[in-house]
Amino acid sequence: MPIEIPEVVIERLPVYARALNDLLSRGREVVSSQELGTELGVTPAQIRKDLSYFGRFGKQGRGYNVRRLLEELRQILGLERQWSLALIGVGRLGRAILSYGGFYPQGFHIVEAFDSDPKAVGRRIGALVIKDVSVLEETLRQTHVDIGIVAVPAEHAQAVIDTLVATGVHAILNYAPIAARVPANVHIRHIDPVLALQSMTYYLKAHEFAAAK
Amino acid sequence: MPIEIPEVVIERLPVYARALNDLLSRGREVVSSQELGTELGVTPAQIRKDLSYFGRFGKQGRGYNVRRLLEELRQILGLERQWSLALIGVGRLGRAILSYGGFYPQGFHIVEAFDSDPKAVGRRIGALVIKDVSVLEETLRQTHVDIGIVAVPAEHAQAVIDTLVATGVHAILNYAPIAARVPANVHIRHIDPVLALQSMTYYLKAHEFAAAK
Repeated sequence: MPIEIPEVVIERLPVYARALNDLLSRGREVVSSQELGTELGVTPAQIRKDLSYFGRFGKQGRGYNVRRLLEELRQILGLERQWSLALIGVGRLGRAILSYGGFYPQGFHIVEAFDSDPKAVGRRIGALVIKDVSVLEETLRQTHVDIGIVAVPAEHAQAVIDTLVATGVHAILNYAPIAARVPANVHIRHIDPVLALQSMTYYLKAHEFAAAK
Repeated sequence: MPIEIPEVVIERLPVYARALNDLLSRGREVVSSQELGTELGVTPAQIRKDLSYFGRFGKQGRGYNVRRLLEELRQILGLERQWSLALIGVGRLGRAILSYGGFYPQGFHIVEAFDSDPKAVGRRIGALVIKDVSVLEETLRQTHVDIGIVAVPAEHAQAVIDTLVATGVHAILNYAPIAARVPANVHIRHIDPVLALQSMTYYLKAHEFAAAK
């Protein structure tokens, strides 16, 4: 059993990996935690502490080898391989997700898509044929997928998530605006622009208050 | 100057508010931190600690009055008022954002939209007429908006963000997959499904490793 690494640390690693990838594409070979921190708006101490969970990467005073650190992070995060995804919900949002060009190049392949609308079921989108959500459980018991993407209306989301969990899916990307319940061994991330907006208005209020004084 | 409240606490408050709203709509009058924690997958201690930054809400052993706590949180977060937003980028993603029904009922009104595509500029979407991004700065100096939504391609995102900041926008919701730089007094939230996926594959790898042993 490895030491328990805080989930917030794991969530920051992809951000570091992206920044390192940018640096590499600009031809940079070495970067200090100071510079990486400035780039990302975090403290160098936090970067050093986060990376220390995974061993020693940099030499004191020398900075990090950009390519080596990126490769290590990709290895740690499992970004060097392909992951298969099932999309549930192919309404307007689901279609935007299917047409989003950012998943495939990063190794995330949507291999199944489901909807409950009879007008959508059977339609071909690229290489995918949309299946009826009634065969979701049956299909995922036969075809392994690593991650489920939930893009159904809020009132159906928990039931879909429960089905995904029942078939052995351990990672869920949830676009429905609900506080979804999953077992402790299942990981879930929420894509929720309203919550993101609501976490900023606090500061806007405070700012207006300060400006009015 | 009030005490500094950690940003992670502020980010959790909208999640609490949503759960309380759900409870209220189900007719619940009182909730314990235990039950709220179970609902949200966090510890009751964390809920009590987060709320303690804002004063005393619950009576020991009595739980929280759902309606009162919700109203307090809405007040703290500024959710009881209307906020005006400008959308920059009206491609496929931007159109999905414009048609998303979740913003308006929560007080988030998109009042301006901009794009650089001559085919998009001048088009009417609902009550909005898409403006050329070249008049973004001029427009926002005349018309106050509280929040900017950035839905332009990655290579243009930092320039758009810089323009928003220059016109006095203090909150940005960024959909572009970049590590954007903003001054310390500007708040930014990223909507990035790839980063969310990449923060789960770590656990999928670990899970497979454990299952294979």
